[in-house]
Amino acid sequence: MSAGAYADLEGRFRRIAHLEGAAAVLHWDSATMMPSGGTAARAAQLATLGRLSHEMLAEPGLGDLIGAAETRLGALDGWQARNLQLMKRRWSRARAVPAGLVEALSHACSACEARWRDARGANDYAALAPLLSEVIRLTRERAAALADALRLEPYDALLDGYDPGTRTVAVDRLFAALHAFLPALTEAALARQAAPPEPLVGPFPIDAQRRLAEQLMVHLGLEAEHSRLDVSRHPFSGGVPDDVRITTRYSEDDATGALMGVLHETGHALYERGLPLAWRDQPVGGAHGMSLHESQSLLIEMQVSRGRPFLAFLAPRLRVWLGGAGSAWEVDNLHQLYARVARGLIRVDADELTYPAHVMVRYDLERRLLGGALDPADLPEAWAVAMREHLDIVPTDDRDGCMQDIHWYAGEFGYFPTYTLGAIAAAQLFAAATVQVPDISAGIARGEFGPLVAWLRDNVHRLGSRFERDELLCRATGQPLEVTAFEEHLRARYLDNVSD
Amino acid sequence: MSAGAYADLEGRFRRIAHLEGAAAVLHWDSATMMPSGGTAARAAQLATLGRLSHEMLAEPGLGDLIGAAETRLGALDGWQARNLQLMKRRWSRARAVPAGLVEALSHACSACEARWRDARGANDYAALAPLLSEVIRLTRERAAALADALRLEPYDALLDGYDPGTRTVAVDRLFAALHAFLPALTEAALARQAAPPEPLVGPFPIDAQRRLAEQLMVHLGLEAEHSRLDVSRHPFSGGVPDDVRITTRYSEDDATGALMGVLHETGHALYERGLPLAWRDQPVGGAHGMSLHESQSLLIEMQVSRGRPFLAFLAPRLRVWLGGAGSAWEVDNLHQLYARVARGLIRVDADELTYPAHVMVRYDLERRLLGGALDPADLPEAWAVAMREHLDIVPTDDRDGCMQDIHWYAGEFGYFPTYTLGAIAAAQLFAAATVQVPDISAGIARGEFGPLVAWLRDNVHRLGSRFERDELLCRATGQPLEVTAFEEHLRARYLDNVSD
Repeated sequence: MSAGAYADLEGRFRRIAHLEGAAAVLHWDSATMMPSGGTAARAAQLATLGRLSHEMLAEPGLGDLIGAAETRLGALDGWQARNLQLMKRRWSRARAVPAGLVEALSHACSACEARWRDARGANDYAALAPLLSEVIRLTRERAAALADALRLEPYDALLDGYDPGTRTVAVDRLFAALHAFLPALTEAALARQAAPPEPLVGPFPIDAQRRLAEQLMVHLGLEAEHSRLDVSRHPFSGGVPDDVRITTRYSEDDATGALMGVLHETGHALYERGLPLAWRDQPVGGAHGMSLHESQSLLIEMQVSRGRPFLAFLAPRLRVWLGGAGSAWEVDNLHQLYARVARGLIRVDADELTYPAHVMVRYDLERRLLGGALDPADLPEAWAVAMREHLDIVPTDDRDGCMQDIHWYAGEFGYFPTYTLGAIAAAQLFAAATVQVPDISAGIARGEFGPLVAWLRDNVHRLGSRFERDELLCRATGQPLEVTAFEEHLRARYLDNVSD
Repeated sequence: MSAGAYADLEGRFRRIAHLEGAAAVLHWDSATMMPSGGTAARAAQLATLGRLSHEMLAEPGLGDLIGAAETRLGALDGWQARNLQLMKRRWSRARAVPAGLVEALSHACSACEARWRDARGANDYAALAPLLSEVIRLTRERAAALADALRLEPYDALLDGYDPGTRTVAVDRLFAALHAFLPALTEAALARQAAPPEPLVGPFPIDAQRRLAEQLMVHLGLEAEHSRLDVSRHPFSGGVPDDVRITTRYSEDDATGALMGVLHETGHALYERGLPLAWRDQPVGGAHGMSLHESQSLLIEMQVSRGRPFLAFLAPRLRVWLGGAGSAWEVDNLHQLYARVARGLIRVDADELTYPAHVMVRYDLERRLLGGALDPADLPEAWAVAMREHLDIVPTDDRDGCMQDIHWYAGEFGYFPTYTLGAIAAAQLFAAATVQVPDISAGIARGEFGPLVAWLRDNVHRLGSRFERDELLCRATGQPLEVTAFEEHLRARYLDNVSD
């Protein structure tokens, strides 16, 4: 039995991955193709797929196989041993939470998320607060159950679900390091900022925007036979590694908003495409976690696409495809457009410099909500206080305040920090890549992304989940996650305005 | 236990239906949206979904529940009791075939179907014959296992899988009745046929074809919020009842080929849309079988859409949308175009009069192949003999002969007869409908399909699988499946050329 235990486990996890892959494509379909009348049937399909993969993960026999495989660890190579460790992690998390609680939380989140869609439009937080309270109550139970099983603090147990290995103590340290320079840097950038750059004036035909975006996807190395680009209300990257599906949304008035979204999602998609083929459908072959995933999207969107070398490549293409002419379409003006700083109310519209403050507001508040120190009924006031402290701006209504993001209302606590961890990691990886391979920057200006993507493949993508994030970063950049490169990048782009 | 056994069964079959629904949408995606590089990943997802739903169907506990529910039949209403009967049918079929045989057959069919795609292009039947032999050998084993469990003849056990309740003896009787008049009627129609009608000369912009097709789908009652129209190599109707997805293929040279395909698939889709909402995801709430399904597509495509009332409605729209002008676009010419008869080599291109002969050729040959009387190596010669007998025409190569259809190479034996049973049922249902509701024909000419669709909903769609096909036909038309109405329809359209 134990001789074949590891092989048996691979078979079981392969089936689980097939179910998860099927669900991923159906999620994509729901957001892009499904007629509205299919909603209930789709929800039932996805619930059954989720329930089955949970049952397959949580069944006692899986634990027996893991135990048996562990007795013969010496027979496994490094990848297999790591795979076994990740199987155990998934199994432990699945076992930790009672099925009844999983179901109750799923229902509470569905109800809360549905109410959020209406309440946000009506700016009616009072109608939403009781449902959020229930989500928080059940999330607290879930966090406690996970904490108990994994020997972690409750919030860390949630964080670990999105970003394995990340702990509050590390986030606190990194966020403190950011906070030590960001407010002053933001002030300086704002003071230094000249009059608004020239706007790009449309309309910009959507078909031209789409074709340019598709051309850039391929330029960046995303093969047409393994990817699609479609439209959805909220852009995302989905599907499975051999069939990645990215989405964006277009506006005729906005020359490059959709394009920048596509470049962001292309970063995610390149990570999925580059995952190790030999470990498809195994835990060790999957992406590591949300902070590394976001590092890949932000590396392409923020480090590369808003830098001068890329803009030198992009500017003439923008002019041809979108019919632009004049100084507004020159690299200098584009660079100013993309490096514009403003303290605003909305996270998803925030620039690179002020985005971390939005994340810190949420990181603060979600821990207080879960810890019980903040009553959901008092969230709007606490939001205003936190926004004033971090961004010196206060929303005039809850729609643009504590109701702007779906995360909490969908039960996602512990997710927000990964956005900023990803931004930090993106800067660290890009800095290391451009130092190690001097061709990279020059290549980008010529539209040659091969050297960059090859470096990312070798140092990130092909490793899958072989190493924890900080070990991967040490191997690739010489140190674990640190804010140094991010700070240098921001200073260069927003203060020195050098060739970055 | 037995008190809740029936309810428990409904829950289990609901989960099976969710898996099958998920697979249906993924099949659609494979044919319409999936980039080619996703093929292997998709095959793995579908195989796992299929294996899981088979396991859920075949597990011994399901049999215990069925037994327990049967001891309390008195507690069930008519729909529930029928549902239980259908559950048992599905369970019996799933149990009958050993898992190893299911898997061996699945592999043999995949290999044979893949070879068929190449061999057909190369007109190389010799390369295909050994793989077909293996498929037939395993299909014979499967038929024997099913026959044993269901107490049916082996071929009937296969037929029953596509069309519950249909038996060879009934097919033989109906085909003999057809054969008694069709050859002479075909001769007469050919002799009577005038010079070729005027052709519709293109090109016809594909976008205009698509928009007209979408308009007609809605006209026929297929709600936009519950359906989609896309493009695939082989047109089909898929998805789930609340989210039906039909496909067609367009050619700029063919004014109405794609449109007629859409009308055919719309007939299938209306059946799915009309299935009883209260029995979603239960066996009794599903479509009955292939012959009734095909009756619904052929009723719309053949009975309605090629009849004069519909052409009176369609002709002006064709002229507007496709820019047609002149006598070729008048109802008389269109009617002649759609009622053109010719004995040809290809089943899918055949007209209404000669189509049954194509089916009879296959019905004959597939029983001999399965019975062992015909060696697959000798199929081309047997094909030529059968074609000469039934259609007086012999293929010059196997590409247009025994390799033209995918069915056998994909392991589908017992499917072909349902096409012609469907054509017979379509005529019988349409004749009854137009007699019972005189408004129907007048409505069609004005583009009002409500009375027709309402009759189909009441008499076919909303019944799901509540009754066997012949009982449903008796209730709707006063008699079981008979060729009378089909013969009358063919005589009227092809000989009398009356208002049909």
